[in-house]
Amino acid sequence: MEMEGLRRFLVALTVAVCVGVVSIASVLVWVLHYREGLAWDGALGEFNWHPVLMVTGFVFLQGIAIIVYRLPWTWQFSKLTVKFVHAGLNLVAFVFAVVSLVAVFDFHNGANIPNMYSLHSWLGLIVVILYCLQLVLGVGMYLIPITPVSWRAAFMPLHVYTGLLLFSSVVAVALMGITEKLIFGLTDPKYKDLPPEAIFVNVLGVLLVVFGSLILWIATRPFWKRPSDQILHNLHTNGGSEDHSRVGPVLSQTSDEPDSEASEDVRRRINK
Amino acid sequence: MEMEGLRRFLVALTVAVCVGVVSIASVLVWVLHYREGLAWDGALGEFNWHPVLMVTGFVFLQGIAIIVYRLPWTWQFSKLTVKFVHAGLNLVAFVFAVVSLVAVFDFHNGANIPNMYSLHSWLGLIVVILYCLQLVLGVGMYLIPITPVSWRAAFMPLHVYTGLLLFSSVVAVALMGITEKLIFGLTDPKYKDLPPEAIFVNVLGVLLVVFGSLILWIATRPFWKRPSDQILHNLHTNGGSEDHSRVGPVLSQTSDEPDSEASEDVRRRINK
Repeated sequence: MEMEGLRRFLVALTVAVCVGVVSIASVLVWVLHYREGLAWDGALGEFNWHPVLMVTGFVFLQGIAIIVYRLPWTWQFSKLTVKFVHAGLNLVAFVFAVVSLVAVFDFHNGANIPNMYSLHSWLGLIVVILYCLQLVLGVGMYLIPITPVSWRAAFMPLHVYTGLLLFSSVVAVALMGITEKLIFGLTDPKYKDLPPEAIFVNVLGVLLVVFGSLILWIATRPFWKRPSDQILHNLHTNGGSEDHSRVGPVLSQTSDEPDSEASEDVRRRINK
Repeated sequence: MEMEGLRRFLVALTVAVCVGVVSIASVLVWVLHYREGLAWDGALGEFNWHPVLMVTGFVFLQGIAIIVYRLPWTWQFSKLTVKFVHAGLNLVAFVFAVVSLVAVFDFHNGANIPNMYSLHSWLGLIVVILYCLQLVLGVGMYLIPITPVSWRAAFMPLHVYTGLLLFSSVVAVALMGITEKLIFGLTDPKYKDLPPEAIFVNVLGVLLVVFGSLILWIATRPFWKRPSDQILHNLHTNGGSEDHSRVGPVLSQTSDEPDSEASEDVRRRINK
């Protein structure tokens, strides 16, 4: 990555991480200062783990998992190592989401509130199930060495699309959850009276959208992709004089394959 | 586009359009059968234009506007013609959104309900303002002939990213609006009792997510892009024997520029 590109990447990354950390701090302030705090007692203190774990795990950690391949200081490690970090962060995010679901089901059952009636709960459960499927398929495809390379390449566009779609959906479902909680939780004054808690949590919602937008921006810029060990190896083998006739097929076959993500980078090196 | 790719495209397009049309029909059934119908009287009949116009214009028409370049039967027309269709559909979607906002402000003022207190309203207004900005910048960049080609190319990745992000945000804001309306609108039985209206409108919410996901899938498949008149012209000029050395620079400079969207298509033709 040339210096200007690196500078822009670091600015986007820094803003994303700062907004993510402020979001986590905000959800903690919400439940600890404005609400009933945190507990595991079947009451509101247990419910409050739901937004905390969702924002921390399912939004922030999943977002970082998505862009981990983009971090230049991971490029010194093998692709397999970074794959494990990617899968590990997603696994932790999934565990956070499951514990967060247990908290809300426990609370509902204790308070005689029905489960699974709202659009938030329907879409939320669909997302968690699909996220689990994505995790299992991802490990099966990219971490088990016997999976054919052709399968990996063919599945990669779907893996990337589904990953970004699920991440966006998690943010959307979080916004619906915030809306529900503010309507049900604020009684006197009500949500429509816009008390300080309502303004504070509305801002948290906006921060989640900003965080999500930055992660999607970083994840979809081709020139911030990890240079491919494979293509760089080819380049070095040919003394940096690889001719263009080799680039066409490589690009067309593997433009979405993370083992050869350097297409843009390599193209720039070749064309300069 | 080869036959198999065309078949898959048509399947995705057909499902997307069907889901979109069923969503529009569903929102009409919601307000006409379950709610107070449609009117322009400052009361609930006027509010009901809000979901109808948002689903019809801001979700469905915007979705179609995004993928209009992908429709193979538009490839016989000049790029400028399709740009006008793209801009025109987005303009109609914007007008629908503005009328839809007037309806909800009118209703709130008549019923002494505060405006702009909910996260739905905050994010919704931000999206409408940014959508207007996107429309103005898009027309300025791509429909006014004096804008330099280098500016157009440099701005295109941002135009594409912002367009897809705003579309996704509109779907998310619609889901929050549905959540609000079901909580406030259902009193006896309540939302948590899951009456038929709640199930019906939850399904509408799921349909909006499916529609959005299909539009994003169609819009982000590189092999479904409109072949570039410019690159095809080069190909024809060279008798179809364009060598690979010409492909690298073209791809690296204009891979996101709709005036040369055929990179993948051309690459396939070249490499076959």
